[in-house]
Amino acid sequence: MIFYKEQIIYPESFRQPSFFISPFSTADLEKNAMIVKDCSCNENTIKKYNSFFGKHEYFLSGKEAINKALSHYLLQKEDEVLILTTTANSYVSSCVTKEIEKFCTWSRQKTDKTKVVFIIHEFGKIYNDMETVKKFNLPIIEDCAMSMFSNDENNLIGTHGDFTIYSIPKFFPVQFGGILKINCENYSITHTKIYKDYLQKLVLHYFQDTEHIINQRKNNNCYMIAGLTKLGFTSYFEYSEFETPSVCMFENNGCDIVKLKVFLQQHGIECSVFYGKDAFFLPVHQALGVFEMDYILNLIEFFIHENK
Amino acid sequence: MIFYKEQIIYPESFRQPSFFISPFSTADLEKNAMIVKDCSCNENTIKKYNSFFGKHEYFLSGKEAINKALSHYLLQKEDEVLILTTTANSYVSSCVTKEIEKFCTWSRQKTDKTKVVFIIHEFGKIYNDMETVKKFNLPIIEDCAMSMFSNDENNLIGTHGDFTIYSIPKFFPVQFGGILKINCENYSITHTKIYKDYLQKLVLHYFQDTEHIINQRKNNNCYMIAGLTKLGFTSYFEYSEFETPSVCMFENNGCDIVKLKVFLQQHGIECSVFYGKDAFFLPVHQALGVFEMDYILNLIEFFIHENK
Repeated sequence: MIFYKEQIIYPESFRQPSFFISPFSTADLEKNAMIVKDCSCNENTIKKYNSFFGKHEYFLSGKEAINKALSHYLLQKEDEVLILTTTANSYVSSCVTKEIEKFCTWSRQKTDKTKVVFIIHEFGKIYNDMETVKKFNLPIIEDCAMSMFSNDENNLIGTHGDFTIYSIPKFFPVQFGGILKINCENYSITHTKIYKDYLQKLVLHYFQDTEHIINQRKNNNCYMIAGLTKLGFTSYFEYSEFETPSVCMFENNGCDIVKLKVFLQQHGIECSVFYGKDAFFLPVHQALGVFEMDYILNLIEFFIHENK
Repeated sequence: MIFYKEQIIYPESFRQPSFFISPFSTADLEKNAMIVKDCSCNENTIKKYNSFFGKHEYFLSGKEAINKALSHYLLQKEDEVLILTTTANSYVSSCVTKEIEKFCTWSRQKTDKTKVVFIIHEFGKIYNDMETVKKFNLPIIEDCAMSMFSNDENNLIGTHGDFTIYSIPKFFPVQFGGILKINCENYSITHTKIYKDYLQKLVLHYFQDTEHIINQRKNNNCYMIAGLTKLGFTSYFEYSEFETPSVCMFENNGCDIVKLKVFLQQHGIECSVFYGKDAFFLPVHQALGVFEMDYILNLIEFFIHENK
């Protein structure tokens, strides 16, 4: 243990704080139980919620929602799902690839075997060439797990495909849950899930905070990037006014970011290298205040200093 | 993931709650920074603090305090430190044994080589045969890391030895810190530690809550034991009115407690088998409310049900 700028470096493992990509924290377990008990929503919120999620089904996770969407197409082993992502980086989350592999294979180029196009709107940055994709005349799934509150200027993201995937914990302080928005016909929703009411009440509740969530994340990203710039890094993304960050992604400047990942995770910070790029991401959610962001920035400063 | 009684079993690893033996939680980082900034204590508290801790030195951890106490005796490799514990269980925390091994060996029986007696007041239960120990006419160290607020009816625990060890995070919501109380002469305190002011302000602040901490822990232990009794377990300790539990220790009733440990730790709960005994311990600190205790009890209920 080291005491550095009034914070502990290398804490005991059972005294690690938690800073997740999700705004979820231990205290939210009880808060959410209360919200579910006393759920009250005004009509306006219900209207906005319905207009946003349309026809939809709840799942335990975004992964389960992906699985259900894929199952719609009766894919054969030799079929391919084409994955297109905002950054076109070679790395794609295993949350997506593992689900596809349960049905068929996946590729990064369109071939004769492509049966479905899976668009990942990454980290709150939208995939911006949907027009080309639509010309393929293939079924489209849009993955907005990391981009619930990101859109284009015409508000069309989430409407292009048969299905749109959302992840509840990525934006709301909830421990689990995925939403599958259904834009196509001949899909029948399973209404009997025991967690549906619980999740719907929470999503309805937190949906009222949308504006705050969006603004706070944008502000937090600015604050983090300003601090990281002082440490020699630069912002990786430029977000449009219609996009909301789900992480703080920064471009590296010669730092051993694989080692940085281990170091920060040892301090309870969910983060990672954006493999395939010389970039790294940190939490940026709405529950982070200046104290917590400084805490993370101080750790990075310490790491740089120690590894010079 | 499984949704059971409105809580998630097997959560994603970056959506794990934290229930430590320590009352420390992530939110305390900021709270403590504020307390250190605005520290104000009344004279009465300072008086009580001084009377409780006497002449003392701050350390990063209880382990460091143990090390410093041992270093006082110029122990030789062939010397032995006799470890006596409340339960006389064969298992002793490696926090103690590892520090002793830096100087000499340790034993559980008095021999001709015994140079120091190290008393561990375990889990808030005091070692109650100090009179016999004192007849050895050997230097005594009392380890109250888990027993800061436990005493005998004459209030003598912590006064028998040359040194008494306290662990700050075990009782206060602080991430780190140990206190070495010095009851002997010819020991000189190092006053230049950069974390001393920080820790002292926090200990002074939280010391004001002593009565609440003691009562809440006693109540929480009753609540937990009542819930565990319904699940077929029994209390392991009987605490006197002068003792404050640092964990909820229960006696097993045929459950696979090694597997229970893995299961509960997967859900963010610091806990363990009390190795050497058919017993198990859980958090019981003052920051746990009924919701959190029910959460832990529900998990144990689920585990028993699944492993029948």
